[in-house]
Amino acid sequence: MNILVVGSIALDTIETPEHSVDNSPGGSALYFSNAASFFAPVNVVGVVGEDFKLHVIDFGNNRPVNFDGLYTEKGKTFRWGGRYHENPNKRDTLFTHLNVFENFKPDIPAHFRDSDIVFLANIDPELQLQVLNQISDPKLIVTDTMNFWISGKRSALEKVIQNSNILILNDEEIRQLTGKINLRDGAEVILEKGPEVVVIKKGEHGAVLMSKSSYFVAPAYPVQKVVDPTGAGDSFAGGFVGYLAKNENFHDHDLRKAIMYGTVVASYCVEDFSFKRLARLTNEELISRYDSLKEMTAY
Amino acid sequence: MNILVVGSIALDTIETPEHSVDNSPGGSALYFSNAASFFAPVNVVGVVGEDFKLHVIDFGNNRPVNFDGLYTEKGKTFRWGGRYHENPNKRDTLFTHLNVFENFKPDIPAHFRDSDIVFLANIDPELQLQVLNQISDPKLIVTDTMNFWISGKRSALEKVIQNSNILILNDEEIRQLTGKINLRDGAEVILEKGPEVVVIKKGEHGAVLMSKSSYFVAPAYPVQKVVDPTGAGDSFAGGFVGYLAKNENFHDHDLRKAIMYGTVVASYCVEDFSFKRLARLTNEELISRYDSLKEMTAY
Repeated sequence: MNILVVGSIALDTIETPEHSVDNSPGGSALYFSNAASFFAPVNVVGVVGEDFKLHVIDFGNNRPVNFDGLYTEKGKTFRWGGRYHENPNKRDTLFTHLNVFENFKPDIPAHFRDSDIVFLANIDPELQLQVLNQISDPKLIVTDTMNFWISGKRSALEKVIQNSNILILNDEEIRQLTGKINLRDGAEVILEKGPEVVVIKKGEHGAVLMSKSSYFVAPAYPVQKVVDPTGAGDSFAGGFVGYLAKNENFHDHDLRKAIMYGTVVASYCVEDFSFKRLARLTNEELISRYDSLKEMTAY
Repeated sequence: MNILVVGSIALDTIETPEHSVDNSPGGSALYFSNAASFFAPVNVVGVVGEDFKLHVIDFGNNRPVNFDGLYTEKGKTFRWGGRYHENPNKRDTLFTHLNVFENFKPDIPAHFRDSDIVFLANIDPELQLQVLNQISDPKLIVTDTMNFWISGKRSALEKVIQNSNILILNDEEIRQLTGKINLRDGAEVILEKGPEVVVIKKGEHGAVLMSKSSYFVAPAYPVQKVVDPTGAGDSFAGGFVGYLAKNENFHDHDLRKAIMYGTVVASYCVEDFSFKRLARLTNEELISRYDSLKEMTAY
């Protein structure tokens, strides 16, 4: 199966205690598609400014990513700046310049509209609805969101959620969205809204997958040297959706394996800046860490 | 095998958003011994004041707990007051009155000195050393501690750690003790100090067990209605050590199962105040939740 992703494409300025990078390619659509393309073909829709050089997107060899939906508009590319501290779980946003992303209207190319799986990355839910209006009947719709849209665009977001099969969000977001402190209670609220599955990302504490009949807890891989946590959530989603596309089945045991592949890809992503680690990631490494994680949870 | 525990015995005043209790029996020695006695005989050493009524220790039917080491001293029992918030992971200490606990000098009864496993609950490391000086050669020494002793009694604590086989502590404590933000790095520092195994408690995020050759990640059981989190850490330790005593082996796969039994007992403990839930806990419930957890982590 193939995947359509609609999301942001950014040039990031990132400071960590040891290094910093400027205008480093990032954004949800790129992190996602990089991760997912280990497993299945990905069609990307997004917007960049005239200052964006396509060759900076270095995903590594022969990844099946189609950039026919990458539009270049007059102006500058979306820019985000962030600073991480000694504890990589905390970051400050230094600036957010939407630039051409401010007027982004996703126009899905005709040959992308029948993609098997659609991933709505974390963008304005009104744009997510525009995407849903342009696609034919996909086999699976997976949606991400964030605090900004939960508070600011609630009713559009509720419509997106109603139409999604799987909602991915972090622990703070599910608390904000549902008003429930207990994550299991929060997931139950969302399962009443439409999605059959909720995935809760807990960063260094792993992830939880919940449906009406199943509850799965996954640990994070204990990365010893986190260089840059940017993109961890989107590469997790990419590994998760990518595995489902490759696997062509969405049963509970498929979803669980998909969570573990998402976990593995995200754990590699944070070992270097931007796409550098994923660009040199091999299938052997992917499988080796998957097996390590399996061993770490066995009893 | 049998277990010796030396720790606090308290009367707790606890406020939660929905309920409050006064002078409710608690303390590390009682929570630990209650949990451990599901699996193996426990010998308790601790001190109470003249105001302590032994009959308040209601552990349920026929638990093999020996209170020959429970001393009654002139004065009042140790009292702790705490308030939990809507989010049960956060609590304020309202008061700590050490009372008779202030002058506690653990005197291990002669018939307790050859206990197979020793659990040094979270007390002054100088007292923990006094315990170590009184016991004959146990098969396993498991030690707990807390932030107060890490900052205030560092050198005594280091000696206790050197002499322990297993150190149990939470994520904040290991960071404080080792100066390492990354938990895996922190565990490696401790494994150089003497213990063969480190157990890191992460509350609602589960636990990690690490030795030089093994890394095990355990989720917490997703309790839906946490009534009172007090005693969760000590009942986790009790289930963990209790299972090891019953099992009479401390290999990696035994330690992993022990972590899961600790997790299960702790998850029941927080479903009611004091020992109420554990007092009515059945073996069938214990095994049923163990099996649920196994299902929640399978892939």
